[in-house]
Amino acid sequence: MTATTPVLDARLRKALGEQTIELPSWAFGNSGTRFKVFGTPGTPRDPYEKIADAAQVHRYTGLAPRVSLHVPWDLVDDFSDLARHAKEHGVTIGMINSNLFQDDDYKLGSLTHSDPAVRRKAVAHHVQCIDVMRATGSKELKVWLPDGTNYPGQDSIRARQDRLAESLAEIYAELDDDHRMVLEYKFFEPAFYHTDVPDWGTSLLHCLALGEKANVVLDTGHHAPGTNIEFIVAQLLRQGRLGAFDFNSRFYADDDLMAGAADPFQLFRIMHEIVQADALRPESGVNFMLDQCHNIEEKIPGQIRSVMNVQEATAKALLVDAEALDAAQRAGDVLGANGVLMDAYNTDVRGLLADLRVEQGRDADPMKAFAASGYAERIAAERVGGQQAGWGA
Amino acid sequence: MTATTPVLDARLRKALGEQTIELPSWAFGNSGTRFKVFGTPGTPRDPYEKIADAAQVHRYTGLAPRVSLHVPWDLVDDFSDLARHAKEHGVTIGMINSNLFQDDDYKLGSLTHSDPAVRRKAVAHHVQCIDVMRATGSKELKVWLPDGTNYPGQDSIRARQDRLAESLAEIYAELDDDHRMVLEYKFFEPAFYHTDVPDWGTSLLHCLALGEKANVVLDTGHHAPGTNIEFIVAQLLRQGRLGAFDFNSRFYADDDLMAGAADPFQLFRIMHEIVQADALRPESGVNFMLDQCHNIEEKIPGQIRSVMNVQEATAKALLVDAEALDAAQRAGDVLGANGVLMDAYNTDVRGLLADLRVEQGRDADPMKAFAASGYAERIAAERVGGQQAGWGA
Amino acid sequence: MTATTPVLDARLRKALGEQTIELPSWAFGNSGTRFKVFGTPGTPRDPYEKIADAAQVHRYTGLAPRVSLHVPWDLVDDFSDLARHAKEHGVTIGMINSNLFQDDDYKLGSLTHSDPAVRRKAVAHHVQCIDVMRATGSKELKVWLPDGTNYPGQDSIRARQDRLAESLAEIYAELDDDHRMVLEYKFFEPAFYHTDVPDWGTSLLHCLALGEKANVVLDTGHHAPGTNIEFIVAQLLRQGRLGAFDFNSRFYADDDLMAGAADPFQLFRIMHEIVQADALRPESGVNFMLDQCHNIEEKIPGQIRSVMNVQEATAKALLVDAEALDAAQRAGDVLGANGVLMDAYNTDVRGLLADLRVEQGRDADPMKAFAASGYAERIAAERVGGQQAGWGA
Amino acid sequence: MTATTPVLDARLRKALGEQTIELPSWAFGNSGTRFKVFGTPGTPRDPYEKIADAAQVHRYTGLAPRVSLHVPWDLVDDFSDLARHAKEHGVTIGMINSNLFQDDDYKLGSLTHSDPAVRRKAVAHHVQCIDVMRATGSKELKVWLPDGTNYPGQDSIRARQDRLAESLAEIYAELDDDHRMVLEYKFFEPAFYHTDVPDWGTSLLHCLALGEKANVVLDTGHHAPGTNIEFIVAQLLRQGRLGAFDFNSRFYADDDLMAGAADPFQLFRIMHEIVQADALRPESGVNFMLDQCHNIEEKIPGQIRSVMNVQEATAKALLVDAEALDAAQRAGDVLGANGVLMDAYNTDVRGLLADLRVEQGRDADPMKAFAASGYAERIAAERVGGQQAGWGA
Repeated sequence: MTATTPVLDARLRKALGEQTIELPSWAFGNSGTRFKVFGTPGTPRDPYEKIADAAQVHRYTGLAPRVSLHVPWDLVDDFSDLARHAKEHGVTIGMINSNLFQDDDYKLGSLTHSDPAVRRKAVAHHVQCIDVMRATGSKELKVWLPDGTNYPGQDSIRARQDRLAESLAEIYAELDDDHRMVLEYKFFEPAFYHTDVPDWGTSLLHCLALGEKANVVLDTGHHAPGTNIEFIVAQLLRQGRLGAFDFNSRFYADDDLMAGAADPFQLFRIMHEIVQADALRPESGVNFMLDQCHNIEEKIPGQIRSVMNVQEATAKALLVDAEALDAAQRAGDVLGANGVLMDAYNTDVRGLLADLRVEQGRDADPMKAFAASGYAERIAAERVGGQQAGWGA
Repeated sequence: MTATTPVLDARLRKALGEQTIELPSWAFGNSGTRFKVFGTPGTPRDPYEKIADAAQVHRYTGLAPRVSLHVPWDLVDDFSDLARHAKEHGVTIGMINSNLFQDDDYKLGSLTHSDPAVRRKAVAHHVQCIDVMRATGSKELKVWLPDGTNYPGQDSIRARQDRLAESLAEIYAELDDDHRMVLEYKFFEPAFYHTDVPDWGTSLLHCLALGEKANVVLDTGHHAPGTNIEFIVAQLLRQGRLGAFDFNSRFYADDDLMAGAADPFQLFRIMHEIVQADALRPESGVNFMLDQCHNIEEKIPGQIRSVMNVQEATAKALLVDAEALDAAQRAGDVLGANGVLMDAYNTDVRGLLADLRVEQGRDADPMKAFAASGYAERIAAERVGGQQAGWGA
Repeated sequence: MTATTPVLDARLRKALGEQTIELPSWAFGNSGTRFKVFGTPGTPRDPYEKIADAAQVHRYTGLAPRVSLHVPWDLVDDFSDLARHAKEHGVTIGMINSNLFQDDDYKLGSLTHSDPAVRRKAVAHHVQCIDVMRATGSKELKVWLPDGTNYPGQDSIRARQDRLAESLAEIYAELDDDHRMVLEYKFFEPAFYHTDVPDWGTSLLHCLALGEKANVVLDTGHHAPGTNIEFIVAQLLRQGRLGAFDFNSRFYADDDLMAGAADPFQLFRIMHEIVQADALRPESGVNFMLDQCHNIEEKIPGQIRSVMNVQEATAKALLVDAEALDAAQRAGDVLGANGVLMDAYNTDVRGLLADLRVEQGRDADPMKAFAASGYAERIAAERVGGQQAGWGA
Repeated sequence: MTATTPVLDARLRKALGEQTIELPSWAFGNSGTRFKVFGTPGTPRDPYEKIADAAQVHRYTGLAPRVSLHVPWDLVDDFSDLARHAKEHGVTIGMINSNLFQDDDYKLGSLTHSDPAVRRKAVAHHVQCIDVMRATGSKELKVWLPDGTNYPGQDSIRARQDRLAESLAEIYAELDDDHRMVLEYKFFEPAFYHTDVPDWGTSLLHCLALGEKANVVLDTGHHAPGTNIEFIVAQLLRQGRLGAFDFNSRFYADDDLMAGAADPFQLFRIMHEIVQADALRPESGVNFMLDQCHNIEEKIPGQIRSVMNVQEATAKALLVDAEALDAAQRAGDVLGANGVLMDAYNTDVRGLLADLRVEQGRDADPMKAFAASGYAERIAAERVGGQQAGWGA
């Protein structure tokens, strides 16, 4: 319960040094609510500019070496050129995200649609995404299914599950041997009565039916109020099926705020489950990704801050005295065990992480360093004209 | 507990005959989620076409004689001409709704903005709305404040309340003697950390500070999960400050589904409070309005169905045996009192309402009658080209 | 959309005639909140009296031929005598429910406890329950696990899952060939930070690991706000793993109100999934059970009313025009498909069910018939002295 | 964003030195859920022992000089003797809490009951409480109204409000000139359909009707999921009507866990509103009280930890750079303003508070000091026999 100044020892240096966080290309474009999307000067106008912006986050944090693409938002003529562009900027292409919500044909469903032609189209879209994987070297296909219904009776919940299983199997069959597929669940939105993959149980059942290359994506904003998310993390790790995170924050629904902004203690508890299961290591197969919308804040600093928040939560989780925790737990010492966890959480790790950055040849303060770099002003001046990229473009 | 076939007696005929439901012009335009807005053939391209569509709802139900306008979405050169157009179609102009969420200046707030110039602009917008009231004969100004913040610390909650009070007072001062103003509250969205008018208590406090012409709007979708909405209805009626409803349905957040679609029993309980307080009468000052988004369903039938759902809930509420209910309540007969309420709810009132429509010279089945009218096909053919009106246009 | 008077045809007569609902013995004892348990005259003082009361529900409704027992609450010296007593009263013994929450040793867990001695005790308790099954002819063991923690860090979520899996396997091994075991999940309470079986996914994973005799119990009050329960029903039916319902109602948390009292439309939607999957038949293996607490209302009438509510929802679900629904769904007719469902829901089935009861030689109105029987007055007079049975005794 | 070691300067010393937190006597008795109340060795058996235990919390923290009593749980023959006993132990008697939920007459309501005799009884109980205030020197009467209904229709929501207003006015008239009354609201439980004072708006309306001596109590666990509690704090402070806090934590419902245990960031945000409005000062009239249940953890350490959590949140709130925050807010710098708040939150204040305690002549670590004192072992040995005090006894 006493304050201590944490020290950057070899264990922390190694564990923190291995951590990587993947950034979504769309976080650098404009986003908003159904009410309004506000534009900002300097917003990227194409995938090249998005990657350039994402690379800034990596440059100042050392934590974000990969960028997720979205198809068709990030379609380019020559993906090997885009991959080369990424490499020049010090990053690589990460997951390929499909899009099942913006085609007029998907109004009542995509992979679950009652019309086989629509399902075929949605499956074919994933074949296209897998081609992008091959072209970019990406090894992971991410599927978020926005399908659902708005009114009771609108469609058969059961029949849609069956059609979904079929469609997913067709996509799965297209994967190369070294490909992985991850399936995301979401509590609600854009559908308001029922969602076809609303919870981790449904996602996991489909993954189990598909095979070992299919795993679950946990988006921290996609749960009912009060859901204990770290329990789900522990459960999916226990099943060996936690494929990826989509980190973001929420106070109400799928608010898509910066990771760690709404409930930093929850983020710490999630990372505590990760650390306990030794799943921070790259070979654990968990892709730690951000998925958030910077509606009113600056986008690059918003991503920097989010990445730092995840890192701070990780550092605190690494500071948990595992031996003392285990002893208190075995002794049934409720307050003692909770106290061990809180001691780590209450520790200020910002100095330790600044030290790590300095050791790595980076600036101690990424937010200030980026602000001082003049990059924001430069892109605001340069990126005039053209169509700003938006969530959905 | 026995089924009875309800009879259309004089009391019901009178009470149901007086009921009116106001329609929002924007319900006839396209709407959607942040993910996608789907278009549909025949969608109105201007306020004239929206009113024409709204008039169809009134034609088949006899319940919807007024149409709410939204400024600037429904701006026209000549509002007296629009009012005349409405009259020709058998309806009148209802409330005027202001818009505080689509101007770039309102990114961080409107009536609460820290910059006085932005607040002045937002106040001036309401002066414009009041001019529209004068031009159209509307007597009510509806203010929904989308203001709020996304991150803790982003702005001062307290200072924003003070600035809001000032701005509202300036607007209130512009009202004519026979004008009314209603202030809507909303739990969250588009702001995700705090909302400046998040609950009925906040709205009521501002109304009390403003004066007797200010009342609260209760949107049925704007509450936290589990909130007992009929309690709020009873409380606002007790204070004499229930200005209007925005009826719609929700399973999760502000889903804006058709009224009565998600929880018809809740709609009945709300109307039971209205009937108990004798607030169905036009002179009660409660404006029963719809506010919903027909994202995937046809819009005119969606409104017809919603209006019918409100009417069915009202008819059931009118069938509650008030004397038996009161007796059971006074006797502390929990199951008996609940049983009296449920008896009314479980009654099938559709035949009774069909009889009422036939008496009024209308078709017994509004949905079928509209479908058979060919109107939908006609507008789909006629309204080609131009820009479809959307939520926000 | 027009009112119709439903007719009791052969199909309905058969389907409704097969339906059975199991009653919990503890519903007839006193219950309450942590704040207060109110007593009532005539409350049973032992399992014999509970069964006698439960038999009254069956007598007037014809729907409730089985009574669930709770061990140790319903321990008697001679279970064959209790089974005989039940038979004399026209009912049989249903599921045997274990109790893992009232022993001082279970303060920090039972089947998940870090101390192997406590786990052995909890497993042994189930062996005792299985003995009661053999003695009473019951074929189903119901396990609800109240285990969980109140504070982050208090115990290891992962280790508890492992210990739970082990404990359940030991219990499962004790089952006879014709025994079944069902595992209930619960969102929260009595634990307030994490619950060891909080959702259907966790329950199902344990059942899958155990084998074919293990299935999931869905208690309608054990979910997060907004959860689409009928989706879970459909999903578990699709997996062939829906073992039983615990029906009750909730507005907020696990309120344990009468089934159908809070959201009758939801109960209807649940029964619609059941009917669609043809799972109403006894051979479907789904045990339709009530689990509720009559804190302030009379208990026998409370159960009668609940049973009738489930029957009404079932009758409405049976009235859904499956062919028209399917056609509208395939046509993508959102309003039409929803309308087919609502037509059934809006139908008043009380007359039809009264006819069914009269056909069966019962009174048309169970509530009135029970009230007129004098039973309530008789037990109030007779059951003086002794210790009233309570939830937990 | 850089870590700093906060220094105990004069401003902090003064502000922190003035802070007091009131303890509830019932926190030292046994508590539990409706499922089970677990006993613990050393639990107090009477109000004298409860006060002795509460005094231990003050002894080690210097923060908890007052103890709230509950009538009738804490009834003694001679209240002046109890007050003397408290004084000897270094504490005083704080608020007097009435009890409207444990009398059989209150099954269907107390101050709202339809039977005037029950209402009179409930009013008379408060007159008794006011007598206890006079006898103990307490100046505050705390009313939490558990009244409500479990089923729609059970009673008239409106009539109950009217009866409540009447009853409260009768109680208010009994207060002495220097007395205050505070009215607590609660979202749900023990009532499950509607609660008669469910939200801050309702509580405030009754307080406004009563007069200046009536203020609102905000229990941090008594809200719907997602409610922004610090907004309510700001709103009530703005109205000058925040009478008291009941601090505790919740993950789901009214879990009554230790303050700061579930969401320490929320507690910090609440204290930030307090500090911003300069309401930490004793003369602000806000009584900072704990109200929690230590179901499974040790009670005295549970209170010590809670008090320390409130103090840590307060210290962090005091560290917010108000000038920098205001500047960033005025500049519309979303990330900057949020960053100022987070900088304070992320600071480790435990060392600073240890320094403060040492300055005050206390041990740096209250948890360890209490554990080392042998008090827990002593009371476990001494308090054998008798009836342990429980929540409700």
